[in-house]
Amino acid sequence: MGDPVRFLIHGASGRMGQALLRLCAGGAVDCSVVAAVSRKPAQRVVDGVPQFAASELAGVPPFDVAIDFSLPEGFDPLLALCRQRGAALVSGTTGLSDAQRQALAEAAADIPVLWAANFSLGVAVLEELVERAAAALAGWDCDIVETHHVHKQDAPSGTALALGAAAKRGGGMPRYASLRAGDIVGEHLVQLTGTGERVELVHRATSRDVFARGALHAASRLRGRPPGAWRLRDLL
Amino acid sequence: MGDPVRFLIHGASGRMGQALLRLCAGGAVDCSVVAAVSRKPAQRVVDGVPQFAASELAGVPPFDVAIDFSLPEGFDPLLALCRQRGAALVSGTTGLSDAQRQALAEAAADIPVLWAANFSLGVAVLEELVERAAAALAGWDCDIVETHHVHKQDAPSGTALALGAAAKRGGGMPRYASLRAGDIVGEHLVQLTGTGERVELVHRATSRDVFARGALHAASRLRGRPPGAWRLRDLL
Amino acid sequence: MGDPVRFLIHGASGRMGQALLRLCAGGAVDCSVVAAVSRKPAQRVVDGVPQFAASELAGVPPFDVAIDFSLPEGFDPLLALCRQRGAALVSGTTGLSDAQRQALAEAAADIPVLWAANFSLGVAVLEELVERAAAALAGWDCDIVETHHVHKQDAPSGTALALGAAAKRGGGMPRYASLRAGDIVGEHLVQLTGTGERVELVHRATSRDVFARGALHAASRLRGRPPGAWRLRDLL
Amino acid sequence: MGDPVRFLIHGASGRMGQALLRLCAGGAVDCSVVAAVSRKPAQRVVDGVPQFAASELAGVPPFDVAIDFSLPEGFDPLLALCRQRGAALVSGTTGLSDAQRQALAEAAADIPVLWAANFSLGVAVLEELVERAAAALAGWDCDIVETHHVHKQDAPSGTALALGAAAKRGGGMPRYASLRAGDIVGEHLVQLTGTGERVELVHRATSRDVFARGALHAASRLRGRPPGAWRLRDLL
Repeated sequence: MGDPVRFLIHGASGRMGQALLRLCAGGAVDCSVVAAVSRKPAQRVVDGVPQFAASELAGVPPFDVAIDFSLPEGFDPLLALCRQRGAALVSGTTGLSDAQRQALAEAAADIPVLWAANFSLGVAVLEELVERAAAALAGWDCDIVETHHVHKQDAPSGTALALGAAAKRGGGMPRYASLRAGDIVGEHLVQLTGTGERVELVHRATSRDVFARGALHAASRLRGRPPGAWRLRDLL
Repeated sequence: MGDPVRFLIHGASGRMGQALLRLCAGGAVDCSVVAAVSRKPAQRVVDGVPQFAASELAGVPPFDVAIDFSLPEGFDPLLALCRQRGAALVSGTTGLSDAQRQALAEAAADIPVLWAANFSLGVAVLEELVERAAAALAGWDCDIVETHHVHKQDAPSGTALALGAAAKRGGGMPRYASLRAGDIVGEHLVQLTGTGERVELVHRATSRDVFARGALHAASRLRGRPPGAWRLRDLL
Repeated sequence: MGDPVRFLIHGASGRMGQALLRLCAGGAVDCSVVAAVSRKPAQRVVDGVPQFAASELAGVPPFDVAIDFSLPEGFDPLLALCRQRGAALVSGTTGLSDAQRQALAEAAADIPVLWAANFSLGVAVLEELVERAAAALAGWDCDIVETHHVHKQDAPSGTALALGAAAKRGGGMPRYASLRAGDIVGEHLVQLTGTGERVELVHRATSRDVFARGALHAASRLRGRPPGAWRLRDLL
Repeated sequence: MGDPVRFLIHGASGRMGQALLRLCAGGAVDCSVVAAVSRKPAQRVVDGVPQFAASELAGVPPFDVAIDFSLPEGFDPLLALCRQRGAALVSGTTGLSDAQRQALAEAAADIPVLWAANFSLGVAVLEELVERAAAALAGWDCDIVETHHVHKQDAPSGTALALGAAAKRGGGMPRYASLRAGDIVGEHLVQLTGTGERVELVHRATSRDVFARGALHAASRLRGRPPGAWRLRDLL
């Protein structure tokens, strides 16, 4: 399989960043983390991984793929760095502005990029199923219900919106409902209702590692790909 | 079991009224329908059942129990008639005003009355389960999701509100979500979510006859009871 | 849309046969029923539909499509009649022998034929989704749970087996569980379980008319097609 | 609340034992673990907790409650020790022989004991709901479906059997189905089906800590209780 892929983890102190570092340390993919970038790292090296402040981004060692789960504020310098270095970018950062999305699309002319609302394989597959179901069940009602832990702020979830976009591509007109309860990791129901019958397409995540593992696999498979805006389903 | 119970069906031309008449004709309970009251009946007798206009209410023959699934406009004269005749009243009419609810409560001093948002045995049982679960699972999040056909106008459904009231009696703080899809008869989910675990209490009705049958059974068992505000669960 | 399609209903006294006749009378599709064939019809004409005994099959008037929901015993003469008349055949009869299935496959050289375990559009779509999901989620566990009314004798249901066959085409290894309860029309769950996440694909039928309507639509669209073994998904 | 309760953890090297030790160390309840007993501990002290081999059981320091998630082989000496010391016993060990169950029942004359198939609060509540629902919905079909990870060997699960016993106390006649898939922690559905309606009572555990935390809380509340066979629902 060649050399281990070299990752830059952006947003290393966040919940997803920590999960990424833990899974990398555990050998989930054949990789080395050459830089963990966070707002203000307290140490230079943690568990053998060199730490960098966001302000030190220009000085990170060579890397193949940046994996970004941070905040929109830090997105522009990271994207610029990837283009400059010719490295790939995998991002799950939500709340990007239109200008940032536009910049990402333009970067795809030079480097391989992947943005996704959800990095689980199951959701990637569900998106495709929803599009096909909505197309085949024209005229049926389409409802999307998402359930997450009480700390989740945005509603509907980015994943629900992505599933809704898939339904629209198939011709459906989705409506959304959001529940916030307990510590539920994430559940999505797409319900297509006709007369006297119904199809329910459900994804349940029970561990956050699902998302971190998906991001790592996608990132390791993005190395060496041609420039372009890749989709998760093309990589998993 | 003695003489067949004598019913007055109020709201006879509506969806529930028609179901009641059909089930009575089919022998679902040991009864005779002595009057079918609707806005403007086209005939004097239909299938052997005497028809009356709302304006002719005073002239209906003796009856034991009035079963009312109509509109708030016709409620007051019917309640007055039941008190005057000493007959029982079963009502599933929604949208009653506070004054009407008050009048119903006062009538309970003289005659047996029963108002319910939902006449299925399953929902009556679920209400009780929800109250106990909410009491035993103090501090858990409580969400109620109801799904009905696209023609249902009010949201949340009266049944969802009744389940929410049961949760509140147990100490819960319910939140509601409503879906409208296809021809779904009626589904209610009460979800109680803690940390690392969850309890889901669900009722699914697949036939409207469930409600009509429940109303008929409750009505037949209300005959001869002492005055008071009865609950469905005491009768089914 | 041309002339109304001419149907022969085979198994006219059964539950599905009665539903087909009722829906045809109600104008569900643009058709005329030229013959209702059952074991021993009590009358020559019912509601304007000519009745025939199975023994009189040779004498039925010209028809475009035979719709067969009967028993294996009557299948061979009906298939022979369709081939002889150059008419199409839609069949949902279960329990056919291997020889009968072989004969059906051979007939497809001459006439359009369609056999399906389930004629709902939703199940036809679900089959396709299951195949794709099983292919995309290689290595995930695959469980199929079907729930039907207590009068259903065979288990797993023909539909569960068809969904299982779809999963196998996608590379899955389905396991089955069957529940028999109340008057449930038919529910199927295909659950694909990975590590930390799960996809559930569900179909719920709440009215038997779904199946009758699906069979009528498929039959009306089979008229005039080239010979061959058609699949429901190609017609709905 | 007085002194911290003193626990003996029996089966300390198992999955539940490890979870118990981790939660105690994290301060989930006000306790001190005075002995961690396992087959052959490699060290004398781990994270400040004294380790004992099963063969050294007689020499453990004073404790208030023994918490036992081990194997039937080690059960008899532990029960004898608890009686001798006048300590309480909480056990979730499965596969006990009839003689062992009998011995446990006899011990309840002298010390407080609690055996449960499942230590989650949600399941304790569900058991009670199932009994009440089965009693109120006499004559409805009762089906229990349990889903667990592929490593679970016994089927139906002990929890499913406990729910079934609750249904039987209410007058139901439960049937069981078991699914084994992925890493599902544990899900139980009790479905009560009538005509045209259905009640579904579901418990989903998404974290094993639910069980460990429930056992710790029950154990801490068992200290100082009178002798007897306690039930989880009396303590949580």
